[in-house]
Amino acid sequence: MAGRVVFIGAGPGSADLITLRGARLLGDADVVLHDALTDPALREFAPRARWIHVGKRGFSDSTGQDLINAMLVKHAAEVALVVRLKGGDPSIFGRLEEELDAMARAGIECEVVPGVTAAIAAAAATQRPLTRRGDGRSVSFTTAMTRTGDMHASRTADTEVFYMAGKQLCALSRRLIEAGWPSDTPVSVVSRAGWPDQLHSDHNVATLPRASLLHAGRPTIVTVGAGARPLEACQEPAKRNASDAAVTCEPCPKP
Amino acid sequence: MAGRVVFIGAGPGSADLITLRGARLLGDADVVLHDALTDPALREFAPRARWIHVGKRGFSDSTGQDLINAMLVKHAAEVALVVRLKGGDPSIFGRLEEELDAMARAGIECEVVPGVTAAIAAAAATQRPLTRRGDGRSVSFTTAMTRTGDMHASRTADTEVFYMAGKQLCALSRRLIEAGWPSDTPVSVVSRAGWPDQLHSDHNVATLPRASLLHAGRPTIVTVGAGARPLEACQEPAKRNASDAAVTCEPCPKP
Repeated sequence: MAGRVVFIGAGPGSADLITLRGARLLGDADVVLHDALTDPALREFAPRARWIHVGKRGFSDSTGQDLINAMLVKHAAEVALVVRLKGGDPSIFGRLEEELDAMARAGIECEVVPGVTAAIAAAAATQRPLTRRGDGRSVSFTTAMTRTGDMHASRTADTEVFYMAGKQLCALSRRLIEAGWPSDTPVSVVSRAGWPDQLHSDHNVATLPRASLLHAGRPTIVTVGAGARPLEACQEPAKRNASDAAVTCEPCPKP
Repeated sequence: MAGRVVFIGAGPGSADLITLRGARLLGDADVVLHDALTDPALREFAPRARWIHVGKRGFSDSTGQDLINAMLVKHAAEVALVVRLKGGDPSIFGRLEEELDAMARAGIECEVVPGVTAAIAAAAATQRPLTRRGDGRSVSFTTAMTRTGDMHASRTADTEVFYMAGKQLCALSRRLIEAGWPSDTPVSVVSRAGWPDQLHSDHNVATLPRASLLHAGRPTIVTVGAGARPLEACQEPAKRNASDAAVTCEPCPKP
């Protein structure tokens, strides 16, 4: 009897951002292959599973992915339920397509359980909705860096969110200006979105490079445009550094 | 003592797509103001709360929003914890900015708990990741319809997802062609994403109008471009109609 593989979005940080469905399926897992960026506290939900860390740090990129695919196939042949636990949501920058393709080729049944993606967790924690009635009718999620290490930025959606941009903030600032964003366009930078040690800082397109030091070495989400703007009733600069993912809204000074 | 308001993303369908954090906070709620599109099964998590339906059907749009804002303020003055439960994620097309602004003006403390947005649930259920390594490096979420009833479409991201497009599939097809999408670009249409009665159909930009009948009268997500393409190893037309949000991957014919 061949086992099946369930891809689960762990959410972008603290264990309690996983869905109920994801937590329940972890409880049935025999083996869990997990990324570096998933909360170790999730192990509580999978008491009988063997946990295997397959974060790609230390591997060359493609070797890592091929090895993960092979491990999924191997374990699915041996146990009933293999969980592939990914940070955030598997369908957004998760390389899910490569793993699903490998499972299909091996004839392995699979299922995908969605999760909260980092951009949405950053928006929730900073109370900056990604869409705004009137001037925020579209939002795009982009990787800042291409496979060749090139950097791409455009001005197409009302709100643009860049994943994995932390090491490239100077280049991103330049590219955004080249793409036509006015230099005073608001930019919100959140690192470790959804984790207790999350940090948040406010900038504009021109001053974005100043965020480099604060967020150095941490997974970083950069939100540009309508969705980066503080709400009308909360115009004081939000310089707070969140001590928890669920940032409480400081009541604004009454008008 | 003034109460606080927690905005919770219920996820896009079945109750078990809510996060653990959202479910736990529902358990502490005194009052829950919920949308039309949240699963009644979520009531199990809020045994002592009073549930109030504030779906906007039947109200004129702006009256409805003002009334909801006023109700949030009123209940927060009377009880310790008011939950505002929204379908999907509150930061994506949830008009969260208007409700947060009203809370800030009234000096009410608030918190936002993120959820799984419908586009991501549709991607999970159909096993079509929204980003693809190589040719799917950006994804945008757009409302198909503007406030004035106009329809907008562009060709800017590698994958474009249109929310609330169900009534406008003919116009959307025309606009996509005008925006430069080749007529054979894959389009995946999912209605009631994340619910047990979810439906899925495959089209291209030119044949999209044919989806109108199947999905009539149902909240519909339209995905265009790289993220709509079936995976390489699963090229058979996916004409299945999902009987559950967690669609199992039919193992593909071996090559």
